[in-house]
Amino acid sequence: MAGSEFQLIQSYFSEPEQVQRADLILGIGDDCAIVAPEEQTHLAFSIDTLISGVHFPHNTSADAVAYKSLAVNLSDLAAMGAEPAWFTLSLTLPGDDQWDPVFREQWLKQFSCSLFKLAGEHNIQLIGGDTTHGALSVTIQVCGYLEQGKGLKRSTAQTGDIIAVTGELGAAALGLDIILQKNSEQYSCLSDDDKQQAVNALNYPQARIKEGLYLKEAAHSAVDLSDGLLSDLGHILTASDVGAELQLETLPLANALSCLSKYQAWEKALTGGDDYELCFTLAKNDWLKVKQQFPHFAAIGHITAEKALCLVKADGQEYKINAKGYDHFG
Amino acid sequence: MAGSEFQLIQSYFSEPEQVQRADLILGIGDDCAIVAPEEQTHLAFSIDTLISGVHFPHNTSADAVAYKSLAVNLSDLAAMGAEPAWFTLSLTLPGDDQWDPVFREQWLKQFSCSLFKLAGEHNIQLIGGDTTHGALSVTIQVCGYLEQGKGLKRSTAQTGDIIAVTGELGAAALGLDIILQKNSEQYSCLSDDDKQQAVNALNYPQARIKEGLYLKEAAHSAVDLSDGLLSDLGHILTASDVGAELQLETLPLANALSCLSKYQAWEKALTGGDDYELCFTLAKNDWLKVKQQFPHFAAIGHITAEKALCLVKADGQEYKINAKGYDHFG
Repeated sequence: MAGSEFQLIQSYFSEPEQVQRADLILGIGDDCAIVAPEEQTHLAFSIDTLISGVHFPHNTSADAVAYKSLAVNLSDLAAMGAEPAWFTLSLTLPGDDQWDPVFREQWLKQFSCSLFKLAGEHNIQLIGGDTTHGALSVTIQVCGYLEQGKGLKRSTAQTGDIIAVTGELGAAALGLDIILQKNSEQYSCLSDDDKQQAVNALNYPQARIKEGLYLKEAAHSAVDLSDGLLSDLGHILTASDVGAELQLETLPLANALSCLSKYQAWEKALTGGDDYELCFTLAKNDWLKVKQQFPHFAAIGHITAEKALCLVKADGQEYKINAKGYDHFG
Repeated sequence: MAGSEFQLIQSYFSEPEQVQRADLILGIGDDCAIVAPEEQTHLAFSIDTLISGVHFPHNTSADAVAYKSLAVNLSDLAAMGAEPAWFTLSLTLPGDDQWDPVFREQWLKQFSCSLFKLAGEHNIQLIGGDTTHGALSVTIQVCGYLEQGKGLKRSTAQTGDIIAVTGELGAAALGLDIILQKNSEQYSCLSDDDKQQAVNALNYPQARIKEGLYLKEAAHSAVDLSDGLLSDLGHILTASDVGAELQLETLPLANALSCLSKYQAWEKALTGGDDYELCFTLAKNDWLKVKQQFPHFAAIGHITAEKALCLVKADGQEYKINAKGYDHFG
């Protein structure tokens, strides 16, 4: 790493952080970081790479890139019912031929501010990293505590379980359309506030950590919605060797979808990615208790023994969907 | 991820592996992996990204890319005296416009074979990952066990310590010259075997795990040599707030450097990167014991109270070097 670059990274990532965890023995600056895990706990690990132009549009602000990179990893912890503890960051930045030094410094400042702010909210500490030159990409690995035997897996849904989600669906996919100026004539009825809300849903997803910690006691299985409800619920069905029936009218559609037709809105909610809500299954008897605690959670269907994913309208008719799940890859 | 791609990844990275650790509760295939760390141990974490064209030449074989990506991370564990346990992999592969499907499948097969072979040698298990499309790069995060209070840090070198290294220096830098066909007239005296050895040193670095586990009892400080001896020893000196004197004639030069002048060979050993030997410091009294155990370790100087790095020839004259440390960045 070039000298000035090294100092820049040092100054933005080694400064005293908001989070100072007691279980960290040695932080950034040696060959490895050292942590002292609490006794009799398990640890949950997840790693995700976000690449400019693939997982976020090239013109996304450094603030949003940082937020989203950490949030999508936190969301994986949430989907297991884990409590965030530490993370590492591998940052690949464009070379001097593409980014001038002033821009790079501004970018790093914004990026690190946003990253440490979100980390502070979840009490997760940056403990190490790597920096290289290349096409802009951010790889974060998170590690969190999990009570022994309490992890929310995908493989443990049971026939008869209620299927529910932690919040509204479809806003992030709408936000991506708006940024890419796709279908803009359709969205002419949206207010600027609605549009901004949709773009924020895409750029600043809320990791449902608190919800995951609660659900690890009540739910049978869970997954986070990164690739779209159909695709991600599909992972639960495959892993648990079951099927599902979804009641389309019960899908909690994001407000911003209101200018779309019912069918268009369903497609966004079913196949749009980047929602980062949790989709979980639980015994019917436990649903009322959960709903009292979190009134905005929505039941959207149930697990069936027959191994298919069936979408049903209020009139009892089955609804066929053409679109596939959200595809980041390529 | 596209369907066929997903299956490809599945088939190469989810097959039964050589390593099946008892402390892994849940492996690849859920939102997070879950591990059950041994009680009363610390954990060491390190993350490194290797980018095609920056950290390895574009035409490097998949076998070597996999080997090196894991080995450089294992080397960080070695430098702390940690015992490898688990790793995650984030793999970014070129899209269909650059890699045809047959080539990708061959590449993934070679890559995963090589990765799991090295993982098997060190009893470290792949527990999770991510795959995306973009310029070829590999990010690996390793995690290993460390006895409480036994981590080999950079900040604990003491005045009077012997400075030593675990093996020969300079071969990898020579290997890079050979691959890039730099200074080829100088290397005309090298045999094909010597050349191959130098290229192998670059592509297949040996992580000194066993040596690190031994040294954590005996040494005061350690670092692994990724950016070149001067640069990496410099990290120890800065962190420990001390200086060093190196005796140039004691540098353990790789055989393949024999066709270079003494001064050229020193420069390769001092500033060439990618050696992945350990450089460590220890009390004079402990050196003989260590040397008996590992006869090929070489003492190359000592730690001084004066905060400078001084290079001394056999005649007592100081030697000034122009080259800077190896610079991966950019």
